[in-house]
Amino acid sequence: VGLSREQLLAGYRQVRAATEALAAPLAIEDMVVQSMPDASPTRWHLAHTTWFFETFILQRALPAYRPVDERYAYLFNSYYVGVGERHPQAQRGLLSRPTVAQVRDYRRQVDHALERFLADAPTATVAPHAFAIELGLHHEQQHQELIVTDITHAFSLNPLSPHYSLPPQVEGWQGSPGRGDGWIDHPGGLVDIGHAGDGFAFDNEGPRHRVHLDPFALARSPVTNADWQAFITAGGYTTPSLWLSDGWDQRVRHDWRAPLYWRPDLDPTAAVCHISYYEADAYARWAGARLPREEEWEALAVSSGAGLPGAGEVWEWTASSYAAYPGYRPFAGDFGEYNGKFMSNRMVLRGGSRATPPGHIRSTYRNFFMPDARWQLSGLRLARPA
Amino acid sequence: VGLSREQLLAGYRQVRAATEALAAPLAIEDMVVQSMPDASPTRWHLAHTTWFFETFILQRALPAYRPVDERYAYLFNSYYVGVGERHPQAQRGLLSRPTVAQVRDYRRQVDHALERFLADAPTATVAPHAFAIELGLHHEQQHQELIVTDITHAFSLNPLSPHYSLPPQVEGWQGSPGRGDGWIDHPGGLVDIGHAGDGFAFDNEGPRHRVHLDPFALARSPVTNADWQAFITAGGYTTPSLWLSDGWDQRVRHDWRAPLYWRPDLDPTAAVCHISYYEADAYARWAGARLPREEEWEALAVSSGAGLPGAGEVWEWTASSYAAYPGYRPFAGDFGEYNGKFMSNRMVLRGGSRATPPGHIRSTYRNFFMPDARWQLSGLRLARPA
Amino acid sequence: VGLSREQLLAGYRQVRAATEALAAPLAIEDMVVQSMPDASPTRWHLAHTTWFFETFILQRALPAYRPVDERYAYLFNSYYVGVGERHPQAQRGLLSRPTVAQVRDYRRQVDHALERFLADAPTATVAPHAFAIELGLHHEQQHQELIVTDITHAFSLNPLSPHYSLPPQVEGWQGSPGRGDGWIDHPGGLVDIGHAGDGFAFDNEGPRHRVHLDPFALARSPVTNADWQAFITAGGYTTPSLWLSDGWDQRVRHDWRAPLYWRPDLDPTAAVCHISYYEADAYARWAGARLPREEEWEALAVSSGAGLPGAGEVWEWTASSYAAYPGYRPFAGDFGEYNGKFMSNRMVLRGGSRATPPGHIRSTYRNFFMPDARWQLSGLRLARPA
Amino acid sequence: VGLSREQLLAGYRQVRAATEALAAPLAIEDMVVQSMPDASPTRWHLAHTTWFFETFILQRALPAYRPVDERYAYLFNSYYVGVGERHPQAQRGLLSRPTVAQVRDYRRQVDHALERFLADAPTATVAPHAFAIELGLHHEQQHQELIVTDITHAFSLNPLSPHYSLPPQVEGWQGSPGRGDGWIDHPGGLVDIGHAGDGFAFDNEGPRHRVHLDPFALARSPVTNADWQAFITAGGYTTPSLWLSDGWDQRVRHDWRAPLYWRPDLDPTAAVCHISYYEADAYARWAGARLPREEEWEALAVSSGAGLPGAGEVWEWTASSYAAYPGYRPFAGDFGEYNGKFMSNRMVLRGGSRATPPGHIRSTYRNFFMPDARWQLSGLRLARPA
Repeated sequence: VGLSREQLLAGYRQVRAATEALAAPLAIEDMVVQSMPDASPTRWHLAHTTWFFETFILQRALPAYRPVDERYAYLFNSYYVGVGERHPQAQRGLLSRPTVAQVRDYRRQVDHALERFLADAPTATVAPHAFAIELGLHHEQQHQELIVTDITHAFSLNPLSPHYSLPPQVEGWQGSPGRGDGWIDHPGGLVDIGHAGDGFAFDNEGPRHRVHLDPFALARSPVTNADWQAFITAGGYTTPSLWLSDGWDQRVRHDWRAPLYWRPDLDPTAAVCHISYYEADAYARWAGARLPREEEWEALAVSSGAGLPGAGEVWEWTASSYAAYPGYRPFAGDFGEYNGKFMSNRMVLRGGSRATPPGHIRSTYRNFFMPDARWQLSGLRLARPA
Repeated sequence: VGLSREQLLAGYRQVRAATEALAAPLAIEDMVVQSMPDASPTRWHLAHTTWFFETFILQRALPAYRPVDERYAYLFNSYYVGVGERHPQAQRGLLSRPTVAQVRDYRRQVDHALERFLADAPTATVAPHAFAIELGLHHEQQHQELIVTDITHAFSLNPLSPHYSLPPQVEGWQGSPGRGDGWIDHPGGLVDIGHAGDGFAFDNEGPRHRVHLDPFALARSPVTNADWQAFITAGGYTTPSLWLSDGWDQRVRHDWRAPLYWRPDLDPTAAVCHISYYEADAYARWAGARLPREEEWEALAVSSGAGLPGAGEVWEWTASSYAAYPGYRPFAGDFGEYNGKFMSNRMVLRGGSRATPPGHIRSTYRNFFMPDARWQLSGLRLARPA
Repeated sequence: VGLSREQLLAGYRQVRAATEALAAPLAIEDMVVQSMPDASPTRWHLAHTTWFFETFILQRALPAYRPVDERYAYLFNSYYVGVGERHPQAQRGLLSRPTVAQVRDYRRQVDHALERFLADAPTATVAPHAFAIELGLHHEQQHQELIVTDITHAFSLNPLSPHYSLPPQVEGWQGSPGRGDGWIDHPGGLVDIGHAGDGFAFDNEGPRHRVHLDPFALARSPVTNADWQAFITAGGYTTPSLWLSDGWDQRVRHDWRAPLYWRPDLDPTAAVCHISYYEADAYARWAGARLPREEEWEALAVSSGAGLPGAGEVWEWTASSYAAYPGYRPFAGDFGEYNGKFMSNRMVLRGGSRATPPGHIRSTYRNFFMPDARWQLSGLRLARPA
Repeated sequence: VGLSREQLLAGYRQVRAATEALAAPLAIEDMVVQSMPDASPTRWHLAHTTWFFETFILQRALPAYRPVDERYAYLFNSYYVGVGERHPQAQRGLLSRPTVAQVRDYRRQVDHALERFLADAPTATVAPHAFAIELGLHHEQQHQELIVTDITHAFSLNPLSPHYSLPPQVEGWQGSPGRGDGWIDHPGGLVDIGHAGDGFAFDNEGPRHRVHLDPFALARSPVTNADWQAFITAGGYTTPSLWLSDGWDQRVRHDWRAPLYWRPDLDPTAAVCHISYYEADAYARWAGARLPREEEWEALAVSSGAGLPGAGEVWEWTASSYAAYPGYRPFAGDFGEYNGKFMSNRMVLRGGSRATPPGHIRSTYRNFFMPDARWQLSGLRLARPA
């Protein structure tokens, strides 16, 4: 029970157009640079998401399909060992070809072929690939957020201080989440965690399983810039006893004194953003609280009905390392590499951010990054015993 | 309700003597080298464990006590930020002074003072320090295992192939655990996890709390060298799809093709040893099983009565990252740095090894190392649904 | 007695146009990438050479001149400590702004101002700056060769194998130097080395001074690709006794097995190119010869009348480290940083290459690079006792 | 015309005993540590010099000779590619075996065999090896100075500040060189440089050859600590325009603010010591002078009769890179690796130091180190035009 072919076609057009809209404000030069190994040039995102559809749908569904360029398989495969060798991630910024124009042409050709496939192929031919197409759309939405965070990082290193703003077409994707004070209690006990129902979910969101929780409470809103300024002023960045050992090492090595991109004139009422897990953890300790476990976050989001208040402005670090749920089964075939093989050394974030495409997120959605990552739209919400 | 002063004194003498016995087979030269940043020279272990008693007991309990050498505080503090600056861990092998003879004299002087304190001081004077002394004994026992694993690593880099054997006094500490085939089932459900009762436990073993488990089974014995040989033969080290992404990166970078110290003539019936978490995880996937979660391991060990069969030969990697239990409270004061600040980036191991001092281990005991660590006596036991 | 104002104007227009011609075949994307710390993006070369004229002529000669963009001083100063802070060289490839269009506009504005200055300013106003302008032209010519070598390196890392060819306007700059067999003898004795006369020369080409040479001979042509193939076939890259110790270390570290960009189908009669000093030195030892000292090279070039036969195809490594001639005086003022401060750790190359602009080179010209540099058009010529 | 067999025997006993005397004040622990890749443990020096005699004399002269331990060839070969594989230099500090006692036994066994060979073998048998023995003695003397500089470096990293003093047996090797003010002129012209005569010299000291020198003057004494203090006070370490570009990079990277081991209470009249070439060069520029070229140094030393005044306290950096003299021929056979393969990237030092064994030095002697080396006894003497 996936999407109908009409839904797929409409979704495809919408998602692909949104990607183009995100890149529209950029100069060609902007789409070439790679500011660090974890980030990618915009051009690469544009091509990689296209490669996904070409590789996993067109080449598998259409026997006569010929790749736009055989060499793109090497250049634009991100990490799928099962489908072949890859160009090293850290060297994406060394490539000036294919040019932006060539990448756009690549997108157009694949779009044309895929839209024709969805429009014309017999239903029995489309059906076996419907899931892959839907997955491709969610995949491209994930890269939409990365386009934003990666170019923001690249611009931050330029002494000319260029600025990237979400273009009007996509701005305000998530709306402005409400703010509130105080805490929301949860009685704990046995709760069921993980995705249920027929809608799309990533494999890492399941299977649904039972956990036991002690009574707890989560803050009604994420920690704000004003809160964080108080932490800085109180010596949060100079007091090792507040920090995890690995976190303090990172703080010293990189001389962290504030969140990434921090400026004194940030909106004090906005959620603090661009912090590492280590900073989130240190703040929580300083505040006499702790970070939520991901099960707590989800349980409260589900029991609150319309989702957790204040969620969706910044990704919220949790105290949970990214691990398989009991009974976890990766997606079948090559898609098994999508999520499962990253289940070590990363921490889970929940809730989505203002750069997360609308409709992409769920209460069971698990984002994950290394604990020292700061270039994502990452903040925190406090937890405590009920 | 800790140990009596007589118990403390007897324990102190026993533990301190065992440390000396471990060092007895070594040449002075052996006690100087540091083979990698994570390992320490034997001489440093001898001094650091002594510094622990001097700093946390003698200097606090005895107003007139003067340190044997004021400068040792800098040299032999491992990671206690709360008690002052430290010599960098990675540079311990650059030091030739104090000499082994001076370190042994340091031990003797501290032993003399501490034994006199335990023998002569008024009970009301000793009592407030009883816990610190007991902790110091458990601490020194942990370093006893590190003395063994660190010198083994250093010797492994020497083309002359020197060999370290546990001396007769301490050999066979753990006895030879029984072996068995097949699986032990556990019905799952709600179980209480964590230390209970009056005996000593580290802060990270509590508080006791309730978790919900699905039915599961654990293998009756750890994976053996013969099993591992089959994994190697089947291409386990050359099949990336078996590995976590980070694990495969490590495998390639360090060209792992077998466990550390692997030799074809190892006893095939012995538990495989000196593997990283990544290797353990890849093996389990290859075997169609998984690693146990630490709660599963503990629940089965407790329900099995006399502990888990086969445990105690090698530390067993679990699928659980090292994190705080719900409601975790670090030890008070400077001892708060003992365990809590390492609760990131590490995986839990359970069960103890043949180099773990007898009496040191408990079913609730949580050891923890980075997932790429291989120089510890680390192996694995398989898990699966019941 | 420098150039007249008309000569300066004509020279300026010619040199600036040649730079643009070199960049003309490139896509915008090509001008952004930096393939290694020693190489720079084309865009940077276009801007840096412009900054040179703006900083050292326009801002000093014209009191009312306002920089096109105040921030370019930080971005496009290469290494002149005397004129302020600089953006780190290794990070030039992280910048996407100013865009190519903005850099071209920068060039046009500076060209306009400088051409007006040369055309309209009183002679007494121009005269004090004539040398700086002439130096700026030679400087830009040096960067013309770097534009070629840097983009060639960047393209070499791209799996799509883009190729850079000198555009028709500048192709064949140096003509095709004649080839010859055998040796040219020089009787040695006392010879005067270094620049003499009124024409332009860099400070490092003087002062003219006397050296004593033993009788020697230089080969009539540089070593060819066919020669080099014989060296490879004979095990030149696998015989450590042929190599300097540092050279062998580099060979092993980078797994050198042939010159950079080596292909079996290279013209066997062309001069071998893209070799390090270490390879040149090993080849000479294998051939039972040695590299020329730079004084030998110059003495023979001068005594041969029209320059050394075969010179100008590739830069020829010499056995001479780059050092000050006796009595060396750096250029006055900020230009003192141009050459002198690099007089350590580098070896001298003589003769120019097919990418050296015509008219740029002299028999006394001293090029210099680190001994492991291979991305320049570097080859060798053999020497031996007469 | 080398040494007689009696001279060889007496020299052997004297040199070997001096090495032992240098090690006598050290603890076993001191002989194990390696403080940086360029330095070696004392134990290694003791063994390597012994390996030299065993490998190049005993094994070649005595068919029945069996090595003390076959494995020492791998452990104690420094860099002789021609005689086999070697243990990596940077890992010498990881080895605790063979122990000091075993190394001393190694020395005794080789001494015994070599002394018997010198005493008993027929003259015709000894003669072909006389040069190798004499070279071995000069070789061991070079390592005597390294024993001093390497342990001094290791001790400098120890917070307990152990101190190494030359033992009475070898103290004052060089006597106290005279001090003087002002300059000594040399008229320049054609001079012959390099070793002449029958006595021992290294291959790099020849062949004798003719050079032309402009008139010059050298200071009568090396630069003193008092002089250097003036340089520091005048901002020498914070003025980039005084420095070579590579030198300034090193200064910034390592935060050099004074010579290595600098202390305010150093004897102001003693020669400044433990400076890099870069610092020497910057000082000379600051002083309005320059460094001597090695030919100038030698010419003046020879023409001064009893050597250069003030020489022998510290090695004196020259402006000359370490290169082959015209017509240079390496020693035959494996000894060809002794000097020649290091003729790149190093600068020549002249004159010897207070840790150079008496009788080891000559006016033609060429020492050489990387320009950033500071742990040797390196200073400078100024030069200027006459």
